[in-house]
Parts: sequence; C-alpha cells; structure tokens
Amino acid sequence: MEWIKDGNLDFLNKRKVEAKEEAQKSVASIIAAVKSDGDEALKNYTKQFDGIDLDSIRVTEEAMHEAASRVPEQVLKAIKQAASNIRAFHEKQVPKSWTETVKEGVVLGQKVTALDSVGVYVPGGTACYPSSVLMGAIPALVAGVKRVVLVSPPQKNGWIADGVLAAALEIGVHEIDQVGGAQAIAALAYGTESIKPVDKIVGPGNLYVMLAKKHVFGDVAIDSLAGPSEIAVVADETADASWIAADLLSQAEHDRLSMPILVTTSEAFGIKVEKEVEKQLQELPRVEIASASVYKQGKIILAADGHEAAAVINRIAPEHLELATRDPHEIFDLIHNAGAIFLGKYSSEPVGDYFAGPNHIIPTNGSARYASPLGVESFIKHSSIIEYSDEALQANGQAIAAFARFEGLEGHARAVEKRMKGAVIHG
Amino acid sequence: MEWIKDGNLDFLNKRKVEAKEEAQKSVASIIAAVKSDGDEALKNYTKQFDGIDLDSIRVTEEAMHEAASRVPEQVLKAIKQAASNIRAFHEKQVPKSWTETVKEGVVLGQKVTALDSVGVYVPGGTACYPSSVLMGAIPALVAGVKRVVLVSPPQKNGWIADGVLAAALEIGVHEIDQVGGAQAIAALAYGTESIKPVDKIVGPGNLYVMLAKKHVFGDVAIDSLAGPSEIAVVADETADASWIAADLLSQAEHDRLSMPILVTTSEAFGIKVEKEVEKQLQELPRVEIASASVYKQGKIILAADGHEAAAVINRIAPEHLELATRDPHEIFDLIHNAGAIFLGKYSSEPVGDYFAGPNHIIPTNGSARYASPLGVESFIKHSSIIEYSDEALQANGQAIAAFARFEGLEGHARAVEKRMKGAVIHG
Repeated sequence: MEWIKDGNLDFLNKRKVEAKEEAQKSVASIIAAVKSDGDEALKNYTKQFDGIDLDSIRVTEEAMHEAASRVPEQVLKAIKQAASNIRAFHEKQVPKSWTETVKEGVVLGQKVTALDSVGVYVPGGTACYPSSVLMGAIPALVAGVKRVVLVSPPQKNGWIADGVLAAALEIGVHEIDQVGGAQAIAALAYGTESIKPVDKIVGPGNLYVMLAKKHVFGDVAIDSLAGPSEIAVVADETADASWIAADLLSQAEHDRLSMPILVTTSEAFGIKVEKEVEKQLQELPRVEIASASVYKQGKIILAADGHEAAAVINRIAPEHLELATRDPHEIFDLIHNAGAIFLGKYSSEPVGDYFAGPNHIIPTNGSARYASPLGVESFIKHSSIIEYSDEALQANGQAIAAFARFEGLEGHARAVEKRMKGAVIHG
Repeated sequence: MEWIKDGNLDFLNKRKVEAKEEAQKSVASIIAAVKSDGDEALKNYTKQFDGIDLDSIRVTEEAMHEAASRVPEQVLKAIKQAASNIRAFHEKQVPKSWTETVKEGVVLGQKVTALDSVGVYVPGGTACYPSSVLMGAIPALVAGVKRVVLVSPPQKNGWIADGVLAAALEIGVHEIDQVGGAQAIAALAYGTESIKPVDKIVGPGNLYVMLAKKHVFGDVAIDSLAGPSEIAVVADETADASWIAADLLSQAEHDRLSMPILVTTSEAFGIKVEKEVEKQLQELPRVEIASASVYKQGKIILAADGHEAAAVINRIAPEHLELATRDPHEIFDLIHNAGAIFLGKYSSEPVGDYFAGPNHIIPTNGSARYASPLGVESFIKHSSIIEYSDEALQANGQAIAAFARFEGLEGHARAVEKRMKGAVIHG
C-alpha cells in the first residue's frame, strides 16, 4: 500500500476513469439500434455480448419459483431478514405532503408523489447479487412506485442467477427482463416490444452501463453515475489491526479499481494493518482482484490528530467510512462528506452491505461531496402548491406586477393586474 | 391554437429539442479550452459570444452597490419581499439529521449536511432576471452552503444587469462572475484562476448551457436539464376566459418554444379563451415571441370530465399547472405529475414566478414525471449511519456472512466472522 505522510492528496485528482471515445461511440450505436429495432436488437446484443440465445426476454413466474427453490434455506432466511431491515429503514425516509396557511389567504405547500415506474439494473455475468435487488427495489416499493422492473444480464448458463430471482420473489417484484449492458438501459429509457419505458433508471453497472445512463439522462432520470468504490477507515491503536485489514480487503475484493484507505494517527498501527492485509490477502479466493486493488490503489495516510483525519476524509468523500477510534463520535461530528458511516469497531462495512438497513448503493468516487445513498427520496418527487385568495392577490398584486415589468415580462404583469380591482392596465 | 378533441396526445413525443451534433462538438471544445486555458479562454469566449472585452471576471462590491442604486425603489421593495417569502418557504424544507436505536445495540440514522459550494447560472444577454438569482441562490443559502457563486453573461453595455446584482446584494451573495454560456459551466466544474470549482451547478440557460451541464455531469452535480417550459390550465366555464388567456400568454411570452395548454370540459369556454388569447396577444410587447408560442405550440384539449382532465395533465406533467375550475381541489387530488400547482382563479402563475415563495426553477418538458422544483434538498446530501454493538454483531453475524458468501464475496464474510466469538474462519 502507498504511504502518505505529508498530507498530499493529489491521488484524488486521478481517481476518475475516463471513458474512451470508442466506448462512447459504441454505447451511442447500441442505444440507436435498440431505439429502432427494439427486442430484436436486445436479442442480438445478448447473443453478441453474453453469448446467449434468448427465447424470451421476460423471466417467467415459474422460472422465478424454480430458482428460489435452488437457493439454500439459510441464505433465503438471510435475504428475508435483510429485506425486512431494509424496508424498516427506508420507511423512515418517506416524506409527507403538507400545506400551510402562511398568511391570511395564502396557502403554500408540497404534494409528494411516487414516480410511476422505475428500472433497477442488477449487475450479472459471473456475479450473483441478490443484495442489489433488495437495495435497488425496496426503496422504490416503499416510495409507492407502482411498476418496478429489474433488468440483469443472463449468466453463462442462460439464466439470471437464482439468488437474484429469489430476492425479487421475496420482495414481490415480478417484471424481470434478462438483458444487461447499454442495451438494457436503452430499453428502459425508450421501450421495446417487451419492455415498456420507465421514468427513472437506478443501480450500478459496468462502464458501458454508466455511459448509457449518462447518454439517456434528460430523457429519463437516473441515479448517480457509479465509479470505482472506496472504503476509508479511520482507526487508531485501540482498534484490532486484523479486523481493520479484513475490512479493507472486503472492499478490495470487489474490483481492481476499488480503493481501500486507512487513515491513522499511529504509524505503528498502520504498519501492523499493512502486514495483516498482506497476510490475509493471500488467503482470499479473489486474491488476484484484491491484490490489484491493494497494491495499486491502497493508501495508508498518516494524520496528526482527529481533526486532520476528518479533514482528509472530507476531501476523499468516501463511499464507505469506518470510524474505529477510541471515540468515534468525536470524529463523526467533524465529517460532512461520506456516503455511509460505520461507527465503532463492531460496525464492519459488510454489516451495511447486506443487512443493517441503510442502502448499499452509495455515491462513489468522491461524489458523496454532493450526493446521497439511494433512498425513498430517489423515487418520489414533489409539486409545489400555491393558493392565493382574492384578498391576498389584491394585497400583493402591485409588487408582483412591478417585479415582472422590471424583468421585461409585461404579459406576466398583466395576468396579475387583470385580477386586480381598479388596476390600471398598461400597454 | 391547436384543438385536440380525440384525446390524442402524440404531440408530447415531439416536445424534446434534439441538440445538433455540431452544438455538442462546439460545447465539448469550449469545455476543453476552459480546462486548459482557464481565464484566458473565458475572456476569449466572452469577446466572441457576448462581444465584450472583460477586464476582470469578478464583479466588484462597488459595482454591485452602484447597480443596486439604479434600481427603482418599488422594485427593490418587491425583491426584498419576494426574497423574504422565498426564504420562509424554503426554510420549511430543511431536513434534519436523525439517529434511532432500532433494536438493542443497533443504531441507525442519517446525517444531513450541506454541499460545500454551488454555482448558480443566471441567464443574461438581453434579459434581466433578478428572480432567477433569488430562486437559485436562496435555497442554497437556507441549506447552509458556505460558498454560493453566481455566473451570468454580461449585457451589451459590458455589465451584468443592475437588477441581478441588486438581488444578489439583497440576499448576501458576493461572488459574482460575469461569464455565461458553456464556458461558465466549464469554469464552475473545473475551475480557472478566477473561479474555484464548485460541487454542484444549478439554474436554467440556453441550449449550450444545457449541453455543457450534461457534459460535466458526473464530475460535478447538476440540477435537471431545462428545456422548453409549459403552462397547463384546467378551467371550466366558471373561470374568466380573459384571465386564463392572460395566464397562457404569460408563459407564451417567455420563449418561442414555450407551450401554453388549456384543458377544458367546455368547448364553448375553449373558444372564448382562444379568442381572448388572440386579442390580448396583439397588445403584448413581446408579441412576436408569444405568437410563435401560441400558434405553433399552443393547445386546447377537450376532456370529458375532471378525471379525464387529470389524466391528460398527468401525461403532460407540466412545469406549471393552474386549476381554475368550480372545485379545484377535486382535480388536485388526482394530479401526480406537475411541477407547481396553482389552485383557484386568483392563483395566477406569475404569483409563483416571483413572489409566493415556492421555487420557479421547476422541471420542464415533462420531467415533472420524475423531478421536483429546485429546493433545499437540491443543496444537501445525507450520510447513512450504522452502529452495531458487539452483541448485535454476534446476533446477526452468521446471517450476514452466509449472505456474503453466497454472493461469492468471501472477504466480506471473513470481515464479519473475525469479530465473532468462536466462529470458524473458512478458507
């Protein structure tokens, strides 16, 4: 791992993965093909990219039940408990409509409504992520979205992974399409014979999925653009170096570009963690991926004190932040840029990845500077409410008309003045 | 205006203005130039596009005070009252951090923090929109954003309009840069010698501004992509045709592509409104713009009853919606896609454009399907909080590890199991 002892955080400016122009062109042409050829294009690309001849894009109820029956009982139980925790947490996020009489004759407010339809992208291929189904779809269901569609590429055996289908069944999502990549995003945005278009697309995916989401943004809504993910751990010598090393590795095993970062006030502790990482790394099944992450992206950053550690974290704006110091709440109060904050030495990051309840779809790559984890608010919107009485309009009409006229918008002024008693109509 | 009597809303599919590839290339090259040449590029483009030789990009305090002194007293008063109303409304939107012990040893929550810095784009050129300053910046200030930057292109006289500077002074925004177009967006996203980069860029602009916002999206946050705007009025014969016509025209005078829409259950009333629109149109200073809007974009849609009217509105998802029927609340309850809803015959749209308090930066072009007006939540983000005790980890560790292992993420399982007492470490 790279040691940083001088506070130089220039590595942050190099985090972004720039998409090659070739990839962008390829995504644009996939989207154009899906727009014009619909399902046929989806099948062609699935053949080309996933090596699968699709009979039908939609997964049948029967296939879902069969898939669930192949998932071990213990895992089904864990999925059920996780779903329940995730639902409970997100139910606390539901905003309420309100109106208020702010002055005599003036009612203002907000009407909160759910989106009509959303698409959730679940990564596939060699992986099987039922947790992505729960994290992507439950907030939408809690928000009250009527139509929740899952898309995921088929695996080598020609099907979406059993666990993914089992998780969908558990939470009551029944519209599942076996298609991935940029072609799936295009189908969700513009529709095909099999897939009706949606209002918003969420969920992480590979570079092509991300480029496609950016491409369709504006025609439909998307969540944030996912990039390489990070864990930052602030720990001191009161923490167990072996636990912290394991947490760093849990992030490292995701992806070669994942960035595991230790921020510590103790050089001795940093050395211990580094040794533990190197030891545990060799025993991991995904040693190859984790090694690339640890050795090319891993950082150990020395900070003079808690304040400096917090300042470093706020610059990094990590997706995941663990605080495993003597008094984690002290640093917690200083943090303002982090996706999910794990407090105390028992709050290992995987507790949140699967189970605790908060979402695991979290802003990556420094975007916690300006974005939040996926949540119910990602699936609702609100309308402003304005109700003026006759009296309120008479009382304020002159000011409104003066303002409008000053902006050169005479039609605006007149619309108000027409309603005013005894007003002079200009023009 | 075009009459639609058969419920065919195909015009909605043609609303989007497709950007020409040429415009996209031009925006990409402007952004690249600002990235590499900084202020020099900003000055070159301002010379090229606005015809102005800029000495300095930043507006001085002195210039702001001088500008404010040239604004009529009545307008300053209206700006002050509007600012106060807008502040009061947005203060109701501020979300609170929370934590809760959801089970023995399990604390979950959300920490709400403001963005560090934001840029507000204020359209300029021939127009002068102090209301855009109030609507863009006040929610950011209420959210607690420390650095709020305004950018606006200089007018022909070489300065940003007096009213814009006066509004900024009124609300306490002092970092104002005279630069517009794609170059301003690039400067806010990537920084120059004069302009430090921001975390988020908001505010409407022309096609180039919109393309630039889409281009930089992902490196910084943006609000939605503004397109042509709409007003839809649902009115019946209890409304005053002349008032409704004036309201439709207040939208029409904005832009040739603005879409004024009347939805009514009464053909006779529709005919009256149409005649009134044609009459009042001729008396408007911006008759040329308003005519293009009315005759090319304007619609009168006949609906069988209130339910059908609401269904039409939900398909349109208009930026502005006026309900001027016998019982506006009856239709209000059926509406789920609209940016701002004006209830009752005295609630003319300009009341909200300037004064009432809710934001006038509202999703356009049907994006009220999935987006909300600009608000405090546009300038905050939250971090999830997860705190598990030793006991909570022991109680749930097995389920978490089983779930992780099922997903093929052994490192995740081990990070949890390391903390478990008497657990078998696999692998």
